[in-house]
Amino acid sequence: MPAPEIEQLISLLAKLPGLGPRSARRAALHMIRRRDQVMTPLTEALRRASDALQTCQTCGNLDTRSPCSVCADPERDGRVICVVEDIADLWALERTQSFRGRYHVLGGTLSPLDGIGPDDLTIAGLLQRAEKPGIEEIIIATNATVAGQTTAHYLRERLGEIGVKTSRLAHGVPVGGELDYLDDGTLAAALKSRRDM
Amino acid sequence: MPAPEIEQLISLLAKLPGLGPRSARRAALHMIRRRDQVMTPLTEALRRASDALQTCQTCGNLDTRSPCSVCADPERDGRVICVVEDIADLWALERTQSFRGRYHVLGGTLSPLDGIGPDDLTIAGLLQRAEKPGIEEIIIATNATVAGQTTAHYLRERLGEIGVKTSRLAHGVPVGGELDYLDDGTLAAALKSRRDM
Repeated sequence: MPAPEIEQLISLLAKLPGLGPRSARRAALHMIRRRDQVMTPLTEALRRASDALQTCQTCGNLDTRSPCSVCADPERDGRVICVVEDIADLWALERTQSFRGRYHVLGGTLSPLDGIGPDDLTIAGLLQRAEKPGIEEIIIATNATVAGQTTAHYLRERLGEIGVKTSRLAHGVPVGGELDYLDDGTLAAALKSRRDM
Repeated sequence: MPAPEIEQLISLLAKLPGLGPRSARRAALHMIRRRDQVMTPLTEALRRASDALQTCQTCGNLDTRSPCSVCADPERDGRVICVVEDIADLWALERTQSFRGRYHVLGGTLSPLDGIGPDDLTIAGLLQRAEKPGIEEIIIATNATVAGQTTAHYLRERLGEIGVKTSRLAHGVPVGGELDYLDDGTLAAALKSRRDM
């Protein structure tokens, strides 16, 4: 049996998404073996992140300050807000470097079966932001899952009451994708949304 | 772009075995979101493990003390030493609760192509231990891989010079295994080592 210190480290690592008991054991051993190169820097990074990070009170992004660097950046276009389910989605969009507006992180999707209603997401905050003068477009970039699309429809209705323009991401053939390997739904959507060339 | 504190945490997590950039991002977000339940305990566990753990000078196990709890346990049979490649293998054998002797962790396998020779493993320490009076058997429990078996053969020769009895783990059908799904090598080994019933 490993020492209790190792046991505890393994059991905590095993709770992280993507790690099970076996990979947690491997990760723990890897860290302990490379104490100076891996373990100490990781401990330090965890401590620093835990101390410094906070949730942006405006958009729900994680940053060392609130409003976050996206909300505070004067060069970003404050007239367009892109609504995402999760901070990871915000990061994914930022990696594309093709959106220069602001974000709003919902914190999940509507899911009546799990008891998650509009009040459990940051929808009230989004409506408040959408009502402000100068907002021209809300891009609803929830996932193309059933839960994500349900949430998108709900948001479109609520935002429609305010009278702000809403849009959603295009469905279609992924860049580099082959038609033969695509699911029927995506292919049908791509056909329906075909564009002149 | 996430804050530099998050970036650094993600890049350190991504270096752990079993985690890539995407799963490291998910793990980092999971931790930051559940700061009190996940992040703080993990930081604490890392710090504690880093402070407390040391390598047993006798067998190479990791423990809070040296000699480790296995080497120091008077109820374990000091006449039998089980040689394993790695601490993870020691843990795996301990989980079976069917070995009550002591261990010796090699720290890897011989690999001339990677420049890993006998001096890079703890073979000298093993030979010293094997020479002591009272040692009756060395079980060579290296992996059943080419590198593991090469190392096992080398160890058998060196230990043979000392005159101590060596043994190796049995090859055969895994418990619960179906013959049809077994590779030919294992099946041939199981047939060759068949036992009266």
